[in-house]
Amino acid sequence: MNDNVKYTLDESQIPKAWYNIVADLPKPPEPPLHPGTGKPIGPDDLAPLFPMSLIQQEVSTERYIEIPEPIRDVYRQWRVTPLYRARRLEKALGTPAKIYYKYEGTSPSGSHKPNTAVAQAFYNKEAGVKRISTETGAGQWGSSLAFAGALFGIEVKVYMVKVSFNQKPYRKALMQAYGATCVASPSTETESGRAILAKFPDSPGSLGIAISEAVEVAAKNDDTKYALGSVLNHVLLHQSVIGIEALKQMEVAGDYPDVVIGCAGGGSNFAGLAFPFLGEQLRGGKKVRVIACEPAACPSLTRGKFAYDFGDTGHLTPLVKMHTLGSTFIPPGFHAGGLRYHGMAPLVSHVHELGLMEAKAYHQKGCFEAALEFARAEGIIPAPESSHAVKCAMDEALRCREEGVSRVILFNLSGHGHFDMGAYTDFLSGKLEDKDYDEKALSEALAQLPPVAAS
Amino acid sequence: MNDNVKYTLDESQIPKAWYNIVADLPKPPEPPLHPGTGKPIGPDDLAPLFPMSLIQQEVSTERYIEIPEPIRDVYRQWRVTPLYRARRLEKALGTPAKIYYKYEGTSPSGSHKPNTAVAQAFYNKEAGVKRISTETGAGQWGSSLAFAGALFGIEVKVYMVKVSFNQKPYRKALMQAYGATCVASPSTETESGRAILAKFPDSPGSLGIAISEAVEVAAKNDDTKYALGSVLNHVLLHQSVIGIEALKQMEVAGDYPDVVIGCAGGGSNFAGLAFPFLGEQLRGGKKVRVIACEPAACPSLTRGKFAYDFGDTGHLTPLVKMHTLGSTFIPPGFHAGGLRYHGMAPLVSHVHELGLMEAKAYHQKGCFEAALEFARAEGIIPAPESSHAVKCAMDEALRCREEGVSRVILFNLSGHGHFDMGAYTDFLSGKLEDKDYDEKALSEALAQLPPVAAS
Repeated sequence: MNDNVKYTLDESQIPKAWYNIVADLPKPPEPPLHPGTGKPIGPDDLAPLFPMSLIQQEVSTERYIEIPEPIRDVYRQWRVTPLYRARRLEKALGTPAKIYYKYEGTSPSGSHKPNTAVAQAFYNKEAGVKRISTETGAGQWGSSLAFAGALFGIEVKVYMVKVSFNQKPYRKALMQAYGATCVASPSTETESGRAILAKFPDSPGSLGIAISEAVEVAAKNDDTKYALGSVLNHVLLHQSVIGIEALKQMEVAGDYPDVVIGCAGGGSNFAGLAFPFLGEQLRGGKKVRVIACEPAACPSLTRGKFAYDFGDTGHLTPLVKMHTLGSTFIPPGFHAGGLRYHGMAPLVSHVHELGLMEAKAYHQKGCFEAALEFARAEGIIPAPESSHAVKCAMDEALRCREEGVSRVILFNLSGHGHFDMGAYTDFLSGKLEDKDYDEKALSEALAQLPPVAAS
Repeated sequence: MNDNVKYTLDESQIPKAWYNIVADLPKPPEPPLHPGTGKPIGPDDLAPLFPMSLIQQEVSTERYIEIPEPIRDVYRQWRVTPLYRARRLEKALGTPAKIYYKYEGTSPSGSHKPNTAVAQAFYNKEAGVKRISTETGAGQWGSSLAFAGALFGIEVKVYMVKVSFNQKPYRKALMQAYGATCVASPSTETESGRAILAKFPDSPGSLGIAISEAVEVAAKNDDTKYALGSVLNHVLLHQSVIGIEALKQMEVAGDYPDVVIGCAGGGSNFAGLAFPFLGEQLRGGKKVRVIACEPAACPSLTRGKFAYDFGDTGHLTPLVKMHTLGSTFIPPGFHAGGLRYHGMAPLVSHVHELGLMEAKAYHQKGCFEAALEFARAEGIIPAPESSHAVKCAMDEALRCREEGVSRVILFNLSGHGHFDMGAYTDFLSGKLEDKDYDEKALSEALAQLPPVAAS
């Protein structure tokens, strides 16, 4: 143990393989199903959307999958990301807890998303793909794929959830600066978008709708593939670099976490940090408490049903078993746009069902309040999404103070909030309201789960 | 020499002392003068504005000044900053040149400014100061001092140049998030501000005006001191950490720069990188070509006069010998707000007069074009200020291609452009115009230089 505030590692310590938790789980996750036949889908069913190398990662049961050298080469620009000990925050809170955070905001686009964007762009390039279509919520994913597309020479087309498109013009500008095209979703460019606009001309959009648009474009164009920024197994796999590095950094720090915390929309930054620690536990290592933090306005883990559902609103995707609020559920337009998804990663959902983790839901005002206290102590402005993890970590630290117990808390600060200052302005001027989802709309959406869900 | 793209150093390599070029210059710079008496000012004249420790640094002729441990402690959060080899940009340009850049955008506020903000906040805190008033252009300095103030528990009041205040609302929000107060300058809060508004109700503001407001507030309030984000000797001193680190990193890279480049508004990021290299040269080391890049719309080094002038528009500061466009000169409202200052750091001006460096002026459209090409190759969006250095470095690299010569180019990427995406949107949509200063206004401003200038 020592007094450092920052733990970095030599670039030779950038992981050489991703970690796949499936290999260590007591029970495998249930397979995706074809919505027509109700039968498990095979690699060929996914071939119109993804290059085969990513499909193989999606279904892999290997514990470690080697990271190709060209991907590590790009990772080198900002990885190993720093692990910080939040000494100034600890002091401000007067807590006996030790708070550590892994900071993914040092990437070029300011979040953890490039970890998988670079990998996906690389494999698509290798497969000769010309164009990638994708969706984005707050824009962290879209700008990360735009960045990766620029590096590997692939065109990127982004369908951005309309409420975020309007709230966060700088994110859109960032995608354009990297050379990508970005349109507000629902758009008039796709059948899925037009169908929604016909029913709800003022739709604020949702990740579910934007996914439909992006998937449709990829399915209809031979030279275009689709990329998803969270939810899928291969995305969670790529994000495991976060936790693999954090394991080594905690070792250098001479500590091991009692609690590991991440915010969860689709689940990828949470899983990226938590799964390598859960893997240690599953292989006989120390038990850790793992907490996923989600928005109270879109609470798939705490209020959703664990059932087969579509990944998108337009029902173009396979059915996946996950915690879902129903594919037709549209969350209210709160500020953590990256957490506005109706479902949760099937692998995170499965791990939750296995009792290996907890979930908590938070309203946005409490999260912004925590984020400001964090910023004034630690100097970094958290992204609104990440502020959910900050809030949970601070609550845990305050509980340590009440109980007079010192615990080691580790959370993922998945991104900075430089592109989200409009949200902070709203909060500081008292304009921000806590949003709740509509209970009736949730019941209706859950009632519309596809029939296979009952089986 | 090796194939790395990133050169980091262990945190034990964070400099233990700042470097003061005055010790190595063949001739000392001329002293600041009292505007009333025309005599050199002494430390007591500055005491109402600055704590004595900073005044001592301002007039020091020591080569090295020890960095107090609490400052190094904060530096640790983001220093040593990375030195990158721009391999992807080199490839895109098809140049035989080797391009390196020192990236200061990894600091909490996204630029080099915290290097001095943290130091100034520390010394003020040590002197028992309650409040610091300051000016800011684009907001990089204001948000950095707000950050430092939050860490050391000092109130920060920022007068932000009105054109930037309106162009960059997210910077203002960042200052507020750190707990600082920010008002548009010229404001109605000070005599200096009211005097300008009476003459020019629509004034876009300037750094010169904002300095007058901040100095006035400090001069009138016993518990308040003033802080400047560039120009002064002690500020350039604090920024020397950039070049000291870069010297070591270039050594690890196995190269030494032929050309060292920085953008220059007040001159601090430029001097921070360049002076330690010039110091090596002055002490018998390798000669380097050093280039300061300034905006064509506010060209103090290339079009200004080397003369005694006021540092502010309201004439509250001492007279300093510098390259100046005249303290009444108001540059047009272009997008690199951090470079809109009528003068240049006296020490940079002196080094220029000694023939140790060159200066070049650039129009903004060419800079944004270069910045986009850089962003698509290297993944980082430069601040509009830093884009001037990017443009110059790329021009130098293209010249190497034409001449078939490989040179080693090192530039300072002083900050990222996450808060300046509005400017990129304007550029991408073709709305950005090249601005020129008004020749007549410049002649008039130069004609109004204080009488001592003629001596």
